Amino acid sequence: MADLKNDRFLRALLRQPVDVTPVWMMRQAGRYLPEYRATRGRAGDFMSLCKNPELACEVTLQPLERFPLDAAILFSDILTIPDAMGLGLYFEQGEGPRFKSPVQSEADVLQLPVPDPEDELRYVMDAVRTIRGALAGRVPLIGFSGSPWTLATYMVEGGSTKEFSKVKGMLFSRPDLMHQLLDKLARSVTLYLNAQIAAGAQAVMVFDTWGGVLTPRDYKAFSLDYMQQIVAGVTREAEGRRVPIILFTKGGGQWLEAMAATGCDALGLDWTTDLGEARRRVGERVALQGNMDPSVLYAPPERIRAEVAEILASFGHGNGHVFNLGHGIHQGVDPERARVFIDAVHELSASYHAGEF
Amino acid sequence: MADLKNDRFLRALLRQPVDVTPVWMMRQAGRYLPEYRATRGRAGDFMSLCKNPELACEVTLQPLERFPLDAAILFSDILTIPDAMGLGLYFEQGEGPRFKSPVQSEADVLQLPVPDPEDELRYVMDAVRTIRGALAGRVPLIGFSGSPWTLATYMVEGGSTKEFSKVKGMLFSRPDLMHQLLDKLARSVTLYLNAQIAAGAQAVMVFDTWGGVLTPRDYKAFSLDYMQQIVAGVTREAEGRRVPIILFTKGGGQWLEAMAATGCDALGLDWTTDLGEARRRVGERVALQGNMDPSVLYAPPERIRAEVAEILASFGHGNGHVFNLGHGIHQGVDPERARVFIDAVHELSASYHAGEF
Repeated sequence: MADLKNDRFLRALLRQPVDVTPVWMMRQAGRYLPEYRATRGRAGDFMSLCKNPELACEVTLQPLERFPLDAAILFSDILTIPDAMGLGLYFEQGEGPRFKSPVQSEADVLQLPVPDPEDELRYVMDAVRTIRGALAGRVPLIGFSGSPWTLATYMVEGGSTKEFSKVKGMLFSRPDLMHQLLDKLARSVTLYLNAQIAAGAQAVMVFDTWGGVLTPRDYKAFSLDYMQQIVAGVTREAEGRRVPIILFTKGGGQWLEAMAATGCDALGLDWTTDLGEARRRVGERVALQGNMDPSVLYAPPERIRAEVAEILASFGHGNGHVFNLGHGIHQGVDPERARVFIDAVHELSASYHAGEF
Repeated sequence: MADLKNDRFLRALLRQPVDVTPVWMMRQAGRYLPEYRATRGRAGDFMSLCKNPELACEVTLQPLERFPLDAAILFSDILTIPDAMGLGLYFEQGEGPRFKSPVQSEADVLQLPVPDPEDELRYVMDAVRTIRGALAGRVPLIGFSGSPWTLATYMVEGGSTKEFSKVKGMLFSRPDLMHQLLDKLARSVTLYLNAQIAAGAQAVMVFDTWGGVLTPRDYKAFSLDYMQQIVAGVTREAEGRRVPIILFTKGGGQWLEAMAATGCDALGLDWTTDLGEARRRVGERVALQGNMDPSVLYAPPERIRAEVAEILASFGHGNGHVFNLGHGIHQGVDPERARVFIDAVHELSASYHAGEF
């Protein structure tokens, strides 16, 4: 493997000194980029793009060609594991993800396989290998998975939901069955992330998009405990370097202390939590990644720079911050506003790191 | 006006002793009740039901005929004010609320009127008067409004939204214009709540459904400050009794201290915050209303009772708790499960109040 030319992202995740605060954007390879829409058009539907390692590599690198980003993230979907379990993932125009065979019964849970990542999910590992080759050490590559609870919501609901009535119905009526499902998912996610690391992912992130719809007790029992199981089972060193693991629960701002106690390296934060306050709460246990409201990218450049400055000031001096949006970049954003954001992070953060690097 | 026979709800909001914890449910007059669906069918569409004081009274009282609830809440919609401002509220099947004339420009903001509650919103005041007469002192009547920020989201987006791109676009690009809109809304909401109180509402609640999509700084500047303006302007005594005001920001669990500092009487809590922890944070400043996950009503009776017991134990002994769901009751819930919930609150809470009343 080629030497890593820019390791700010990995250093910041381990709370080591950096010259400027590293920055990347969730969904940085996505529909706001015309070149992405062009590749997507060639691929056909979304899953055909995910399942084609060359095209997945192409879109992964597109934002890096435009912007001085400090990390690449594997282009894929959070629902690849349930798809590999046989649920039949598909996307309906404007409707979000759907499963042909949702999990509706005890028998459905019991018969779910734990997918072999180098078999049913080989297309993901091939994408990781292809991207690592193409990156040639430019920046680190992030692998990822959905969290067990988040995967379970889609698997039981059969798609997106506002009320989570089916999956919470199972959680409250059959907690035993929900735990079986989540345990199977945690084992699958662990294998999946370890295979991504073996294939070349240099950091991994667990997206718990829907942990925030639970009560504090249910969050711990049905989401966090399974993420902890993953943290405990994931490879933490590869190619002679630490492989950091980031946990991100959207809407999880009230539970940062518990999340930090899992032993993960970093927490992703959405924009509803003040970054400086979060830092005081988690202390030296973890790095923090975030947390600008993606809607700020609809604002004029000077407003974007002001928001970046506020967030940098809130974190303050010292190590352990990876700048990001608090959620994926919106598809309606002008790419030039993304550039303003990324440049502002690098320019305005330098003074916070002076003399430390 | 008839004497109030059951004032537990008002007493608990003022942190006075009660015999058992009072309970009501957000959206208790709603689609989960077959009798509601029947009245709604007679009325035609949803707004025709809201605009007919006799039918609005009928559905307001329906849950009280079934269950021993400790409060009634005016049947209406949170978007009556923008409708009265001339935006043309309508509901599309399965699509949620829509406006014919959303707020899209500076001129649109400037020409918005502050509605006279006894003119354009007279149907709401007539409903309050009709319901108060029909209640005959059985339980107190709650009036309500959407918060300025929440109203603004629908007015600028033209309906429901996931990304809030238009309204946040205005917030970040034209904060001056957004403040003008919010100030006009805060003045309208204050007049509207005061007219409801004059017509007979015995407590009022401000629903800030979308404050939780903001950063902590923007929440304060664009949502909380305008709720504080309302708290300062609302009539606090009527018929010789204190009229309590409740603020509820969904997803606002991180900002309870700031909400309590507005001078309101109580905070509504969704289920993502532990009630006991919330109590420790706000101290003796406010009462708390909440906070069972409405999805627990999909569970078997013993699970519902266990959850009620957990929440009561979390609050502990002492005054200042109104039991409620953390959000509106889901339309798919069996009404008999709602009965289990309400009965459980009264039965299981008695021991927490023994010797205090």
